[in-house]
Amino acid sequence: MLYEINEKVIRLEKEGKKIIKFNLGDPDQQTPTEIINAAFEAMKKGKTKYASAAGEKELREVLAEIHGVPADNIVVTPGSKWAIFAVMYLLLEKGDNVIIPSPHWTAYDLAAKSLGAEVRLLKTSLETEWKVNPENLERLIDGKTKLIILNNPNNPTSKVMDEKVVSKIVETANRKGVKILSDEVYADISFIKTKSLLEYGGEHIIIKSFSKTFAMTGWRIGYAIADKQIADKIIKLNQITLTNVPVFIQDAALKALEYRQKIIQMIREDYWKRAEMACKMLSDTKLKFTKPEAPFYLFPKLEGLDSERFAFDLLDKGVAVAPGTSFGDYKEHFRIALTAPDDEVEVGLKIIAEAFR
Amino acid sequence: MLYEINEKVIRLEKEGKKIIKFNLGDPDQQTPTEIINAAFEAMKKGKTKYASAAGEKELREVLAEIHGVPADNIVVTPGSKWAIFAVMYLLLEKGDNVIIPSPHWTAYDLAAKSLGAEVRLLKTSLETEWKVNPENLERLIDGKTKLIILNNPNNPTSKVMDEKVVSKIVETANRKGVKILSDEVYADISFIKTKSLLEYGGEHIIIKSFSKTFAMTGWRIGYAIADKQIADKIIKLNQITLTNVPVFIQDAALKALEYRQKIIQMIREDYWKRAEMACKMLSDTKLKFTKPEAPFYLFPKLEGLDSERFAFDLLDKGVAVAPGTSFGDYKEHFRIALTAPDDEVEVGLKIIAEAFR
Repeated sequence: MLYEINEKVIRLEKEGKKIIKFNLGDPDQQTPTEIINAAFEAMKKGKTKYASAAGEKELREVLAEIHGVPADNIVVTPGSKWAIFAVMYLLLEKGDNVIIPSPHWTAYDLAAKSLGAEVRLLKTSLETEWKVNPENLERLIDGKTKLIILNNPNNPTSKVMDEKVVSKIVETANRKGVKILSDEVYADISFIKTKSLLEYGGEHIIIKSFSKTFAMTGWRIGYAIADKQIADKIIKLNQITLTNVPVFIQDAALKALEYRQKIIQMIREDYWKRAEMACKMLSDTKLKFTKPEAPFYLFPKLEGLDSERFAFDLLDKGVAVAPGTSFGDYKEHFRIALTAPDDEVEVGLKIIAEAFR
Repeated sequence: MLYEINEKVIRLEKEGKKIIKFNLGDPDQQTPTEIINAAFEAMKKGKTKYASAAGEKELREVLAEIHGVPADNIVVTPGSKWAIFAVMYLLLEKGDNVIIPSPHWTAYDLAAKSLGAEVRLLKTSLETEWKVNPENLERLIDGKTKLIILNNPNNPTSKVMDEKVVSKIVETANRKGVKILSDEVYADISFIKTKSLLEYGGEHIIIKSFSKTFAMTGWRIGYAIADKQIADKIIKLNQITLTNVPVFIQDAALKALEYRQKIIQMIREDYWKRAEMACKMLSDTKLKFTKPEAPFYLFPKLEGLDSERFAFDLLDKGVAVAPGTSFGDYKEHFRIALTAPDDEVEVGLKIIAEAFR
């Protein structure tokens, strides 16, 4: 449904209509100039050749230092999505299953199914503040379970997982010998502290990205942190599929890390302000929602809502959102991505608020 | 073995030794400045966002015009390697088989095996000028054959396939309902006309790249030409694995196409001169080889040679080549990639010639 909405957006824009786009998680901010210049300098220096399938040594070392792991455990990938697919490709055989708390990013689902794996969704709900129940999760595990996917902070709820819950899930996974893939692409810019799965122990896989943290979505660069055995397998898979992430893009990423504190602070503040504004503007409507603890989504609910129909109706009023059905069994929800410029965010939220007053 | 050689090269270089690198197919030429500038301009214009998994409309349209196919049949990929892997991922089930004339690029082999497919090699030899025997190829086909991979011109022999042979293979494939994947990444810069598989009829897949044609190996951009059904499946796979090739890289590729004639002529001439020089310098040695019909390889033979041992010995003399065993059952062969600067090519060839006098 996400694709259908986006196609209609593109069509309406071509017809000259102005659409406020809350439907995609693609930041409106521009990639900082320092990063762009670093890529250009690298190109001019001839960093346009084949390179290591693991990622450049220097970038891996800086990332290793940030995360307190050996550089051998870092693999640079063309986006976090590739890292997620690669892990599934390596761990899942046809007939295996993967457990995913829902609502969830649809790419997990599609990748697992493409590989012939069964997806077992564990539903969470607004009423219990999107809390994952570790006992219910354990009940889904059987001999064919190869992977649990956590998305912390979560897309579409912008909820940070309770640390006790994560502890319990890790304990269960370690006991049962199941790997966890922890997708933490929103963690660096989250509004409240988000403890990485790295800090919980056990040999699991952490997925990170430059996309959201540095407004670099279209650069396609992310990385996996994994034990050496899995890291080496991802590197081997990179060798036969992609060769390497362009070195000039890795140089740009290295520059992003140099300005890390400054950029993160700026981006986090932008989204925090928007989240505050959204909560305020939607507070006197019939919508129920949890306050975002991270960028950049709200996932409000109205009992009885047909979110697909609502999304198409709202599009006629010039605002695009994603229906809840794009994230699992959430027909009464829709996702607002606060990734439009500030003035548009205000106008768009007003239109949504009016629809639910 | 390719990786082992390359690792030793890197180690020796770190120790301060000068190595002439004939071991990799990575052109020494720099990416033309116009192309680099186009990427920079695109970045500054904000072309750093998520984009179509099919590739940018304009780039697809220009490529479609060049090849005389509808734009819907073009899918832009992060390198031709990804396009090859994607096709195999989509067509091969565990237990299926793929037929590959040998000597061959090892990535075909590794990708097929990674997917659980059987690889059936069809050996060709220097003595019969690397000609593929279509009758022998047909004999390898059975009910589990899903793909035939042709590499035209060939790496490592730099041989262009005989048109009558290709015709026969296409006729067989069409009759048997087997797809052909034609990897034509050296075709645009080949020294003699290389007829594309597109011109033979039947619904097959053509793989192209910007890497060799425009000295853009590390930019990671190539494309597949396929019927709409397969093209759409590759696009769907891109959506769940990679999202898109960075748009600024696609803009750079578009600029490359604008200067196509000029760049191709320049690059082809460089390699033609080197190939002529190599043939001349190796003509009075004990080595047997066919004259390259395309960039950038020679694949000479000496009866009784242990090419792996030879490659390591030669490395001690400062020249890196790839042993024949990296391309199939070719222990008596080695591959020279003429991808070093002209003066190094001359010195390196002299050292090789001396070893075989």
